[in-house]
Amino acid sequence: MPLTRFSVPALHTVTRQLAAVAMGQAEPDLVITGGRVFSSYTERLHDNREVWIKCGRIAAVKPAGTAKKQRGGATKFYDAKGGIIAPGLVDPHIHIESSMMAACAYAEGALLNGTTTIFCDSHEIGNVCDVAGVEWMLKDARQAPLNIFLTVPSTVPATSSYFETAGGDLTAEKIGQLFDKWPEAVALGEKMDFVQVAMGDERSHAILGAAIQRGKPISGHIYGREFVAAGAASGINDTHEAIDRDIADDFLENGVWVFLRGGPPTTPWHSLPEAIKTVTELGANPKRVCVCTDDRDADDLFMFGLDWVVREAVKAGMSRETALSMGSLHPATRFHLDNEIGGLGPARRADLVLMNDDLEPQCTWYGGELVVKNRKVTPLLEETLSQPYRYPKAAYRTVKLPRKPKLTPDLPTETVVANTIRTELPGIILFHDQVTLEPAASWEEQFAKHDLCFVTVVERHGKSGEVAHGLLRNFGLKEGAVASSVGHDAHNIILAGTNEADMAVALETIKASKGGVCIVKQGKVVAEVPLPIAGLLSDKRAKVVAKESTKLKKAWAAAGCTLPYMGFNLIPLSVIPEIRITDKGLVTVPGMKIVPLFETK
Amino acid sequence: MPLTRFSVPALHTVTRQLAAVAMGQAEPDLVITGGRVFSSYTERLHDNREVWIKCGRIAAVKPAGTAKKQRGGATKFYDAKGGIIAPGLVDPHIHIESSMMAACAYAEGALLNGTTTIFCDSHEIGNVCDVAGVEWMLKDARQAPLNIFLTVPSTVPATSSYFETAGGDLTAEKIGQLFDKWPEAVALGEKMDFVQVAMGDERSHAILGAAIQRGKPISGHIYGREFVAAGAASGINDTHEAIDRDIADDFLENGVWVFLRGGPPTTPWHSLPEAIKTVTELGANPKRVCVCTDDRDADDLFMFGLDWVVREAVKAGMSRETALSMGSLHPATRFHLDNEIGGLGPARRADLVLMNDDLEPQCTWYGGELVVKNRKVTPLLEETLSQPYRYPKAAYRTVKLPRKPKLTPDLPTETVVANTIRTELPGIILFHDQVTLEPAASWEEQFAKHDLCFVTVVERHGKSGEVAHGLLRNFGLKEGAVASSVGHDAHNIILAGTNEADMAVALETIKASKGGVCIVKQGKVVAEVPLPIAGLLSDKRAKVVAKESTKLKKAWAAAGCTLPYMGFNLIPLSVIPEIRITDKGLVTVPGMKIVPLFETK
Repeated sequence: MPLTRFSVPALHTVTRQLAAVAMGQAEPDLVITGGRVFSSYTERLHDNREVWIKCGRIAAVKPAGTAKKQRGGATKFYDAKGGIIAPGLVDPHIHIESSMMAACAYAEGALLNGTTTIFCDSHEIGNVCDVAGVEWMLKDARQAPLNIFLTVPSTVPATSSYFETAGGDLTAEKIGQLFDKWPEAVALGEKMDFVQVAMGDERSHAILGAAIQRGKPISGHIYGREFVAAGAASGINDTHEAIDRDIADDFLENGVWVFLRGGPPTTPWHSLPEAIKTVTELGANPKRVCVCTDDRDADDLFMFGLDWVVREAVKAGMSRETALSMGSLHPATRFHLDNEIGGLGPARRADLVLMNDDLEPQCTWYGGELVVKNRKVTPLLEETLSQPYRYPKAAYRTVKLPRKPKLTPDLPTETVVANTIRTELPGIILFHDQVTLEPAASWEEQFAKHDLCFVTVVERHGKSGEVAHGLLRNFGLKEGAVASSVGHDAHNIILAGTNEADMAVALETIKASKGGVCIVKQGKVVAEVPLPIAGLLSDKRAKVVAKESTKLKKAWAAAGCTLPYMGFNLIPLSVIPEIRITDKGLVTVPGMKIVPLFETK
Repeated sequence: MPLTRFSVPALHTVTRQLAAVAMGQAEPDLVITGGRVFSSYTERLHDNREVWIKCGRIAAVKPAGTAKKQRGGATKFYDAKGGIIAPGLVDPHIHIESSMMAACAYAEGALLNGTTTIFCDSHEIGNVCDVAGVEWMLKDARQAPLNIFLTVPSTVPATSSYFETAGGDLTAEKIGQLFDKWPEAVALGEKMDFVQVAMGDERSHAILGAAIQRGKPISGHIYGREFVAAGAASGINDTHEAIDRDIADDFLENGVWVFLRGGPPTTPWHSLPEAIKTVTELGANPKRVCVCTDDRDADDLFMFGLDWVVREAVKAGMSRETALSMGSLHPATRFHLDNEIGGLGPARRADLVLMNDDLEPQCTWYGGELVVKNRKVTPLLEETLSQPYRYPKAAYRTVKLPRKPKLTPDLPTETVVANTIRTELPGIILFHDQVTLEPAASWEEQFAKHDLCFVTVVERHGKSGEVAHGLLRNFGLKEGAVASSVGHDAHNIILAGTNEADMAVALETIKASKGGVCIVKQGKVVAEVPLPIAGLLSDKRAKVVAKESTKLKKAWAAAGCTLPYMGFNLIPLSVIPEIRITDKGLVTVPGMKIVPLFETK
């Protein structure tokens, strides 16, 4: 039997057995002894305690040595050798799709990081496959050796069919049905259209209403202090987008839980060190503060897990006890699940992590089963990971391209002003550069003169078949083409290139793999991560995807690209300033206008 | 229109209006300005802020002076004159019946104390009237100007029909139906039979299961550190029975929220000063600690409200900010209602209290309406209080007595050993004294020699018609009789007296009033509180009941009774050691045996 969330019996079926163990009238299945036990409830570390486990749940925490080894006894013992026994970590906000792997595969990385519960917003697959995609991922999640709860995608599409062609259209009605059908749909996910929310947009508020009426928490995504009160007034009560001290403080004051996001140090997402200053500098009580990862690509998942974010919180001035609470009980409480996870109280799932004094996970138990031992996957987990959920055929048929699309614009024959997209690190905001192009003999000449390359979006949902052309400035690509089927949020194909031939090869490569990210040079594929599930996810094991992704990143850097590929994927995201490109053309934000590539003077 | 919980529209119907006010694009209905605003979210007090209210909800908290008075503007202003603006207090555990008044009447006392939400366990009326009684009180609650949530009575009857005759029998099935029918049934109430729970009793665990399956929190009632882990393992996750530092600490460590109970200083229920030492001496984080009142009789409700308990927490070493959080956000969070109450975040109900620096409530707003102004009920509240829910006729027909019951035992004609009940302050535990009675000429002689009086229980549910006789030692009653239809938990009639004639008058008085508490001397009623609803509740206004109750207490003390009447009411409660009396006879606890009044040597 593969190990899943359902391997632990529902609490109401085992309360009598748990009580009997707690009273010393029945034997526990497992005792983890000889450690210091971290209490997320009181934020204290207790010397010499042991944890008694029965039926995959915690029955009691007792002084070390209370359980006696008996000849022929059924109880197993594990010696924690002085380490810190903590509740399995709880990640309140992640997008599995960022890891480019399926839920069952994601579990491996999470468990190695001591993370046993995640709250996942399957926003990306929703954008491609609508309700069906969300439901496939929920099935995938149910077969994973990890507690995966869903925060139902709330902003699909990100804008509207006027600005881009998406595969999904999650209306308030569909969202309500997801809540009613899937008990693990515990909250509404990241409401991204915060300006529309603040302005009272009807569709946005209908979606918020579907969650509010059902008593579900709502995750927000708000930039700008002027929008915080209106977001909270609209029912939003958590955020992972507190990017500095003052807005983090505003969120807390407005009754919004703050999830401090730790991003790999090389990314622009590492907002924890600034946002945590609401506590360390402004004196806010941290009881409504959590830590989260948000996005991790495959290789970063292994290096910068939630455990790393907890350690970053310590580095930023939190006690170990508070930081661990931020990564366990606080998110459990935020989602009303503190009776099931987030602490080592009796009745809770026996999801535990054994850490060293630097809070580095050494062992992980999931539902009372040892799944990671001394930083290695155990045979039991190995067996489960080898039997993942298989996505249906329809999930492998999402790259539906127009026939022979024209991938580059015609060379202007007279002087024009080009609306170009200038990339600039950290890469979130893309700048609108108007560049005057005098007539030239070739695109090569124009590119060299103005530091440009092609950027093209090809619709891939088999709907409009549209293709939009643009020019990227300062992207640094020296030669060839790069392409991705993960073009946020509609996930059309985004390509950049110095010549149409390589771009065509890249597009063909993605088509052949049913989705993916690739780099092409002189007609040859230099690196690729195939993503055949919805054009977003690999169907391989975590470490394979991580290896492919490491190789891709190296080749990407070698190709000269100034934006990493995750940033490249954001080029079509037409909700972030100043100018983006979708299958409908160039879109200026926040003005929300479609502008032509070339304007004549 | 009377003011009720439903006067404030459901959040999802007004998010757009609230957002418009928060963005400054629409006018608030009311601005409370010029105060310091207490944030339960961050535990800070902010100078010079103002609270914007719209549609009975909070739209925003802004710097004082942001809202401008405009000629002909629709916005009302209230000047807080430097006071502390805090969220309305939230009482996580009370029994309305202890106040001897109905829910609509209780609201007056609560609002005067700055309390706008209570979680009520209608255990007593459930014991008398089963599901019907609980539902009457729910209807009563819906018409009250107060947020009243139900924690469904979990232990009705307290023991079983072998030990006493009760009116109610709340099975797991009935409890499940109450949860499914009434959205305000948010948790399972005080599970009193903690020994049975620890021992795996089937009925008890079926009831726990009904709550667990529905994801409802469960309130516990546990004495003895050895039972804490088993209680928690059975699904219990709050308690108001942490009577000292160490058990309070155990509860927290076992993932059980602790509600510090403040009882009037003259009662044995004031456990806060000891229990709070888990925080002040042992260093537990207070994030899962609340304050509560549990029981208040009518006059104490006005003097020792939840506001008083908050002040007691300050006296015991908490900061004002933490103490106020314990009385607002923490209980709201515990019951998963922190998005609706417990803090001054946008979208929440505009339930507020204006306090002076000593945390004494001056004004209360309920759903944005001023209901208490300068410690006085406003005309709006007065109007609502004058139109309370009327209980149905069946509620007034619960005292069904046997015809001409024999109220005293025969005088022994030979030497016997009497199993007497010795009362001793504080009065919770009653002691089992075996007293040798030599033959005497009269009961008067025996009473004088051994410090005794009669104690009798008369079944009043019209079921068995049984009468049990006992002897009370050290009760101090000089002359006459006292009687009550509030004999916990089965609420049969409990009488004590020095002579049968006065006892008969007392019984007749209760019968005539359809329930009540009274004192009789020389055939005349000296004081009475009529309790015609279920024999538990008055149908009068709070202050009338308080006046009656004050008079009764005085007469009670004057009669010489050593136990106050609330303690007297507990004499039949056959779950507390050492000996009690029910309609079935004398019961020894915890041995749970029925023993005869007289044993021959």
